[in-house]
Amino acid sequence: MKLIDALNWRYATKKMNGQTVPQEKLDYILDATRLSPSSSGLQPYEIFVISNPELLEKIQPIAFNQSQITECSHLLVFAAWDGYSLDRITKVFDRTVAERGIPADAMDAYKERLWGMYEPLPVEWHANHAARQAYIALGIAMAAAAEQQVDATPIEGFSPEELDKLLELKEKGLKSAVILPLGYRDSANDWLVNLKKVRTPKETFITEIK
Amino acid sequence: MKLIDALNWRYATKKMNGQTVPQEKLDYILDATRLSPSSSGLQPYEIFVISNPELLEKIQPIAFNQSQITECSHLLVFAAWDGYSLDRITKVFDRTVAERGIPADAMDAYKERLWGMYEPLPVEWHANHAARQAYIALGIAMAAAAEQQVDATPIEGFSPEELDKLLELKEKGLKSAVILPLGYRDSANDWLVNLKKVRTPKETFITEIK
Repeated sequence: MKLIDALNWRYATKKMNGQTVPQEKLDYILDATRLSPSSSGLQPYEIFVISNPELLEKIQPIAFNQSQITECSHLLVFAAWDGYSLDRITKVFDRTVAERGIPADAMDAYKERLWGMYEPLPVEWHANHAARQAYIALGIAMAAAAEQQVDATPIEGFSPEELDKLLELKEKGLKSAVILPLGYRDSANDWLVNLKKVRTPKETFITEIK
Repeated sequence: MKLIDALNWRYATKKMNGQTVPQEKLDYILDATRLSPSSSGLQPYEIFVISNPELLEKIQPIAFNQSQITECSHLLVFAAWDGYSLDRITKVFDRTVAERGIPADAMDAYKERLWGMYEPLPVEWHANHAARQAYIALGIAMAAAAEQQVDATPIEGFSPEELDKLLELKEKGLKSAVILPLGYRDSANDWLVNLKKVRTPKETFITEIK
């Protein structure tokens, strides 16, 4: 399926029917998400894939009781690093040089320059920057889900503090950035399913400078 | 082309060959980008598509002289709203109800609730939130480019202040968030093209809670 057709097919499903997404499709979506580009290749986030019904029931009130939380098949939680550190960057770069079979010090100068830029910046900047990278992955995840004809509803309407507490993210140096229920639309009961998809007109959205 | 194959094909091209991306492919990428989901459907960003050589030459020194800025075919600038306002939200919702042919006041309660949440938040939060939505579109744009076998290199390494000044974005209530040269890899001269793509291992990246 062409991406453009997949994007036209998808919408922010408001009501899901509880059907389970097959493991093969879930794996595909997660594999695509893992291939998302990120700044300096750091991938400063992790994905929690929650299908445990009791846990989903605990998350629902934290997310304004939105129905998709318990009607979905799997809930993806995009949890971004709460900040960069030399240790975190070193781990990624060490793995990178090892997997590429290049000299162990090949990325040292780059790492020093990068950390030289990041270190003086406030921790809020770090967390925000990491969350932005997670949003790239959110975009890719939604594209992959749509290609697999799996519905997905990006949700920012939840309490990150409470979700972090519930999932013990602080202890892991993470902060929940955005959540994405995956599942299937309940077409008979979703008020949004038949409404026109509206986007900013091209002439407002795009400015060409030739 | 399947998204997963497109994502495996793509990489952050370090050297481009100056070849022009056909209008049809460019339009496809921009159409996909415009279909990107965003919080409350506000699409709080615009895309500048720059192919003017003199302007690209002016942008290059603002972006650490990275070669793709002038070797690319088109440079996309993702420029996010510098903040939300009741006026901006109203314009989007007015268009939405008009295009959907639903009562003019159908989104009034939602709008009030939304603005009630946004208004008290600091302008930095607004700008950051808008930029995050642009990063979803960045993810979609890179997926679309890869599907079209067009190379794309996400670049955060530039001075937003200087680029905003050059493109007169402040006057438009916008802030440059990220830029994306589109073009074609110069395989013979790109040091990265043959290096292995490295990603966080699945077992570290994904935590399943069943």
